[in-house]
Amino acid sequence: MEELTTKGKNAKEAANYLMKVSSDRKNDVLLHSAELLMRHKEEIIIANKKDLRSARKNGIKDTLLDRLILDEGRILGMAEGLREIASLNDPVGEVLSMNRRPNGLMIGKQRVPIGVIGIIFESRPNVTVDAFGLCLKTGNASILRGGKEAIHSNLAINRILQLSLTNCKFPVKAVQVIEDTTRESSLALMKLNGYLDLLIPRGGAGLIKTVVENSSVPVIETGVGNCHIYVDNYADIEKANNITINAKTQRPGVCNAAETLLIHSEIAEEFIPEICRKLSDKNVEIRGDDTVTKYYPGAKQATEEDWSTEYLNLILAVKVVDSLDEALNHIHAYGTKHSEAIITENYSHAQRFLNEIDAAAVYVNASTRFTDGYEFGFGAEIGISTQKLHARGPMGLKELTTTKYIIYGDGQIRV
Amino acid sequence: MEELTTKGKNAKEAANYLMKVSSDRKNDVLLHSAELLMRHKEEIIIANKKDLRSARKNGIKDTLLDRLILDEGRILGMAEGLREIASLNDPVGEVLSMNRRPNGLMIGKQRVPIGVIGIIFESRPNVTVDAFGLCLKTGNASILRGGKEAIHSNLAINRILQLSLTNCKFPVKAVQVIEDTTRESSLALMKLNGYLDLLIPRGGAGLIKTVVENSSVPVIETGVGNCHIYVDNYADIEKANNITINAKTQRPGVCNAAETLLIHSEIAEEFIPEICRKLSDKNVEIRGDDTVTKYYPGAKQATEEDWSTEYLNLILAVKVVDSLDEALNHIHAYGTKHSEAIITENYSHAQRFLNEIDAAAVYVNASTRFTDGYEFGFGAEIGISTQKLHARGPMGLKELTTTKYIIYGDGQIRV
Repeated sequence: MEELTTKGKNAKEAANYLMKVSSDRKNDVLLHSAELLMRHKEEIIIANKKDLRSARKNGIKDTLLDRLILDEGRILGMAEGLREIASLNDPVGEVLSMNRRPNGLMIGKQRVPIGVIGIIFESRPNVTVDAFGLCLKTGNASILRGGKEAIHSNLAINRILQLSLTNCKFPVKAVQVIEDTTRESSLALMKLNGYLDLLIPRGGAGLIKTVVENSSVPVIETGVGNCHIYVDNYADIEKANNITINAKTQRPGVCNAAETLLIHSEIAEEFIPEICRKLSDKNVEIRGDDTVTKYYPGAKQATEEDWSTEYLNLILAVKVVDSLDEALNHIHAYGTKHSEAIITENYSHAQRFLNEIDAAAVYVNASTRFTDGYEFGFGAEIGISTQKLHARGPMGLKELTTTKYIIYGDGQIRV
Repeated sequence: MEELTTKGKNAKEAANYLMKVSSDRKNDVLLHSAELLMRHKEEIIIANKKDLRSARKNGIKDTLLDRLILDEGRILGMAEGLREIASLNDPVGEVLSMNRRPNGLMIGKQRVPIGVIGIIFESRPNVTVDAFGLCLKTGNASILRGGKEAIHSNLAINRILQLSLTNCKFPVKAVQVIEDTTRESSLALMKLNGYLDLLIPRGGAGLIKTVVENSSVPVIETGVGNCHIYVDNYADIEKANNITINAKTQRPGVCNAAETLLIHSEIAEEFIPEICRKLSDKNVEIRGDDTVTKYYPGAKQATEEDWSTEYLNLILAVKVVDSLDEALNHIHAYGTKHSEAIITENYSHAQRFLNEIDAAAVYVNASTRFTDGYEFGFGAEIGISTQKLHARGPMGLKELTTTKYIIYGDGQIRV
């Protein structure tokens, strides 16, 4: 597809420039972009109204419509986001290690930009600004492919960001929004080998699956979280109550919310009625196994499907297990390797859980809701990786860089 | 494909076991495997003879035939390789960082095995042992798909390695060689999502291209090296001579050998006749631009194709450039981001080259031949990555691991 190839070439040229630019100059662009977004807010709001009109005409759901809206407050939020990114440390240039080899060669490993990063995302147009900011800060050019519902908003934002790049004497193609919102342009982006160094899908399970299955360029999968809380027989019951309620109800629609509660059989009779009542008070629907429905008759009967469902809603699957091993096996069988927590005061159980659970984030006595770039202290987040290559767990600025070896010699040859 | 799905399931189970195993026990398997390879060497040699017979019948080239041969010396080499891997530090378990967050959470980043690693390789059957050893040392299960020319040798080796696993009370499916050597089994391996965490192709450009284009599982591309030596106008000519000759001739058939020599025009008249004569003495064919053929009439005229060719042979493309910028642009246009070197005594030129060249390894005043896991001090090498994600440059044991976050709390919930 011609549009994509041209964009790919332009992005590569821009990336070659960005690689060499100082943090100060990159921050200038970020701050100037924030200023321009506010100065041109009317332009964005007018474009956004076009998107909202077609969305309403197409009978889009209210929750999706809400994500699409850009008003003055949200534009201010986007501008603030860019200012925050400007205030973070630039990871580019850091030498992670340098050693002298026996032959005198000094071999160092240095953090450098990845190059050209593609991001495919769904309706929220604020992702355009956020992705641009994170990529530019780390010296990467970005090619952004938003949803067709938000195309007018995205293109208006793109014009402002490109104006900012021009004003700051940066290559204008350091950020490019794809105009063509057909399925073809999306597939072409997934096959843009030679131009695109990395593709990150940000959105629902369907989008991520399509990208993983169709991409020949490297992908970082961000993803599904079927997270568990295991309340051990040695749990502090107060912690177990607080953490379970927090992990399930504090924000149920996100990937690090808990979806299944595992309870050791020794404490089932005491703990099940208490936690289920508290969860019910928070409007959580309980789907339990036989023991759960016995001790808490308000629970629905769970089916096999419940153990593998990411509800993203006020529903919790609850199961009783007879041992730590059974809990580990259940998580191994049904978990999505995102975030898993044990509640226990037993040292060996805590250590076994940390060692034996294979997930991006493994917790002892804390809520799974902490799996997040900001909570981890990264200052930013481009997504939460559930794959094992390159980045795992919350991805901040460092995860948008790669490394190269820099080698200082004085004439060494290999013998 | 049923064979692959079964192998995938078995490997996942084995990986779940390997994840928890101590370094001592993994080293026991490696040392015992070395012993068994020597004890069962006759069995390997008999199987290998079957492969050699069919290879000769199919009229295989002598150089390929040589790669296929396993004799006592080579089996000893494989056993020694396993002993060396056993002697290396196990990277698994290392906590790379741990910080206390303001809310008291201790968040650590710990190195853990990747899980199940697939390796597709060509004729050398010793890769079977090497890949098994590197994967086992790092707690990963491996699924190995060698070439059909070596299938009897590979299966004989597999039996011995599996016997060693059994004797050491490890799951026998920690290593599995794919019996089916059709193209279908290879494609099925590339699509084994859900079981395979990583696929590494080891072989020629054709194999790597097929794997990159067809895989839906994550791949680490090892690869092509069109490496340059740029001799700056501020070069120490003795270093320039030694390094050029070393980089071209010390082992011309490998990816880190130099393929193009760039020479600054200010030193062309002096340097070209000297280096070309020395290279000719080493049987190197020179393909030069007009200035090169003018100063060294023994050179052939280079064509556009020469600038992008990885000869892997005693041929060198030579071009004169008028500035460091022209050299950087040439490398940017034709390089494969593998290994690039500048020869200069000028501080600013050295720094610019290090900063502006986008390659896995960038050298000042040293031969590109050093891009190698052993030369970098990793003690082992699974390949040299030319991609930017996860691993770049020589890959040792650390590159066969991923990380997970381990979080110690005392009841924290998110507010």
